[in-house]
Amino acid sequence: MKTEEMIDGIVAKLLADYEDDRAINKTDLAYQPNKEAILNILKKLFKIIYPGYYHDRSYKLYSVRNDLAATIEDVTYNLHKQVFTVFKYCNTYPYKDDRAIDSIAQEKVVSFLDTIPRIREYLDTDLQATLDGDPAAESKDEIILCYPGIYAITVYRIAHELVKLDIPMLPRIMTEHAHNLTGIDINPGATIGKYFFIDHGTGIVIGETTVIGEHVKIYQGVTLGALSTKGGQTLKSIKRHPTIGNNVTIYSGASILGGDTVIEDNVVVGGNAFITKSVEKDTQVIVKKPELKESKI
Amino acid sequence: MKTEEMIDGIVAKLLADYEDDRAINKTDLAYQPNKEAILNILKKLFKIIYPGYYHDRSYKLYSVRNDLAATIEDVTYNLHKQVFTVFKYCNTYPYKDDRAIDSIAQEKVVSFLDTIPRIREYLDTDLQATLDGDPAAESKDEIILCYPGIYAITVYRIAHELVKLDIPMLPRIMTEHAHNLTGIDINPGATIGKYFFIDHGTGIVIGETTVIGEHVKIYQGVTLGALSTKGGQTLKSIKRHPTIGNNVTIYSGASILGGDTVIEDNVVVGGNAFITKSVEKDTQVIVKKPELKESKI
Amino acid sequence: MKTEEMIDGIVAKLLADYEDDRAINKTDLAYQPNKEAILNILKKLFKIIYPGYYHDRSYKLYSVRNDLAATIEDVTYNLHKQVFTVFKYCNTYPYKDDRAIDSIAQEKVVSFLDTIPRIREYLDTDLQATLDGDPAAESKDEIILCYPGIYAITVYRIAHELVKLDIPMLPRIMTEHAHNLTGIDINPGATIGKYFFIDHGTGIVIGETTVIGEHVKIYQGVTLGALSTKGGQTLKSIKRHPTIGNNVTIYSGASILGGDTVIEDNVVVGGNAFITKSVEKDTQVIVKKPELKESKI
Repeated sequence: MKTEEMIDGIVAKLLADYEDDRAINKTDLAYQPNKEAILNILKKLFKIIYPGYYHDRSYKLYSVRNDLAATIEDVTYNLHKQVFTVFKYCNTYPYKDDRAIDSIAQEKVVSFLDTIPRIREYLDTDLQATLDGDPAAESKDEIILCYPGIYAITVYRIAHELVKLDIPMLPRIMTEHAHNLTGIDINPGATIGKYFFIDHGTGIVIGETTVIGEHVKIYQGVTLGALSTKGGQTLKSIKRHPTIGNNVTIYSGASILGGDTVIEDNVVVGGNAFITKSVEKDTQVIVKKPELKESKI
Repeated sequence: MKTEEMIDGIVAKLLADYEDDRAINKTDLAYQPNKEAILNILKKLFKIIYPGYYHDRSYKLYSVRNDLAATIEDVTYNLHKQVFTVFKYCNTYPYKDDRAIDSIAQEKVVSFLDTIPRIREYLDTDLQATLDGDPAAESKDEIILCYPGIYAITVYRIAHELVKLDIPMLPRIMTEHAHNLTGIDINPGATIGKYFFIDHGTGIVIGETTVIGEHVKIYQGVTLGALSTKGGQTLKSIKRHPTIGNNVTIYSGASILGGDTVIEDNVVVGGNAFITKSVEKDTQVIVKKPELKESKI
Repeated sequence: MKTEEMIDGIVAKLLADYEDDRAINKTDLAYQPNKEAILNILKKLFKIIYPGYYHDRSYKLYSVRNDLAATIEDVTYNLHKQVFTVFKYCNTYPYKDDRAIDSIAQEKVVSFLDTIPRIREYLDTDLQATLDGDPAAESKDEIILCYPGIYAITVYRIAHELVKLDIPMLPRIMTEHAHNLTGIDINPGATIGKYFFIDHGTGIVIGETTVIGEHVKIYQGVTLGALSTKGGQTLKSIKRHPTIGNNVTIYSGASILGGDTVIEDNVVVGGNAFITKSVEKDTQVIVKKPELKESKI
């Protein structure tokens, strides 16, 4: 059989397979969010948030105003386009026409841009907490340029503001990108206070309805999760994840599970602890270390 | 010393060092698999498997047939080239001449392309399982566009079909790429049934000889591994990893180890469980929680 | 309100916000390390270390000398530039003028390039250990092309030589890049002997003052960490991380913590063990498995 015939046969089979109308076959292409465009917006937001760090090589200080204006204009234009698209795609405003939706999208983008000074205020405290908390950190510059924790927190703080504006899909696309890069999975719906510090970070999971206070430190492999997700979609808007107070440190590998679980202020949770009940303030919770059996080889 | 002399000196030292004939110095360059080309094939396969999701911006619905034909032709040409190359590189058919190997490579590529409808059938069930299992999931679209679990499963299902056709190296290059992106390490040799759901995913390891049934859910940090790999290469084709039945849920951080370990149908394995023996059907296995010691700070 | 006015308003607010003089606002742009350039240098070093593997497609064997000379020249030029920049940026030599700093930078680069044969000698042993240790490995070629463990170890061995030359920031930018790609977080300050083998790797953390002997194997999720980092920056140059002897195997999820903790030669540490005290040589340490509670569903 010739290659062309073979290809024709496979194409025919696949076209038939596409007609099944399953979710895997998307045909409504007109209003589909563009992942690449969204990640590009994220990059531009890093430039705005950390002026001087994520700049282009051509960046000159005397033109900081022009450069900023151009970047803001770019983000406004592209974010507006993506927000409109996901509103249409997710059928968020079923009774409104395109003009009305477009106008709502524009308002949302302005509201979001207005939150950037607050995002920056929070991130400045996260930077401070990271420098204070990590003996291996040389400077805040080093932290901004290469710490995965601060990267994941920055993306979360951006995405969380979009969640608060009821914009679907975009926030999760952003945080899953950070998850890919850092192994830190913070759901954009979580609420996290100032001076948040993540060390190492790989394997951290922070669920959608988690609430975290100020001055909280979290190490690699920590899960702030649900007790059971057997209920699946029926659990959709229920608080399934824990509440963490202020000045709490959670060491590596610990799991704190359940929507009713409250870790009060000034608690230290030891490595590998598995906690499904609330812990009172000013408490240290350590796992009674599992007995070790030593034997000569 | 001038820079040129210094560079000459270092070049001379390195050239001498290259003559050691160690594995680190590869000289047989003619038939070397091209990682970039392989990852490019993977991207094209995502376009074919999820029509409408991983499309180019220029994609138009009315031309779906032409677009598909062009993509299939591209994959056929490039995959053929890489399969031929790895057959030569790994000396898979030592007694055959290049023409015969080329012809086998072509047959393998056609056989592989013929499995795409089955890959899509399986993935459609994985999507359904993900939506059903995750209260935070908004839609199947969101899952396809940004869930790391579905990304890793898709790459695994593609790579596994290549393993079944006895094509060396390419499958592992693909799954290690997914491992890099998602932190989910599924060996392409594993066998995994329909309706497979991975949540969060970072830190999951699924070994080469693992067998998994249908409707299985796995959370972050789960290892389906070998009891001990002290034997190294002598264990090469022995079943070293567990067998998991249908309707099994394995919560975060659990380890299930050993080639004789069988987890029967309808079992729930609790978080952090460490299991090295078989578990009967309809059983819930929970770790007796390690005692917590609380003390006031 | 028109879009232009709105953008003007946001720009004005952000410019005011930038004037706070917080760490998040970097204005000293003249001497800032260029992350992209650093990662590009890393790529070139892979070409030099693994000749024939990470080559460009145009690479021809007969021109290996010319190709190598060009790559070395490129690395020399660009690394010199980045080393000079970080010396200025970190104010490493406050009493010296630019010419003197430039000359030190050049010397450091030459000293670094001179270590490449040793880096290659060590990596050749790591490759051997990986092949010997992993029953799923098909060949050393496969390991070089796609094993995350060998990737992370290679970047660490490069970065560690830069640390030994007291070059700030660059080593950490390199190892955090490997951390992003592989989920393996090796601080470039750690000391690691020959024949080092990492399997799977996601979630591994190896702290700054860790010392590791020869023939050591480490699996996914292992932490070689500090007991507590409450002290933050005051702990800066204290040995906070453990010492591991020769022929030690540490299975998945184990934590070994503390600067005084010494794991002597020929020790096997079982999965999930949590160790904060030294272990004598020729010992196997297993966690007394936490009791499992089984119940019928």
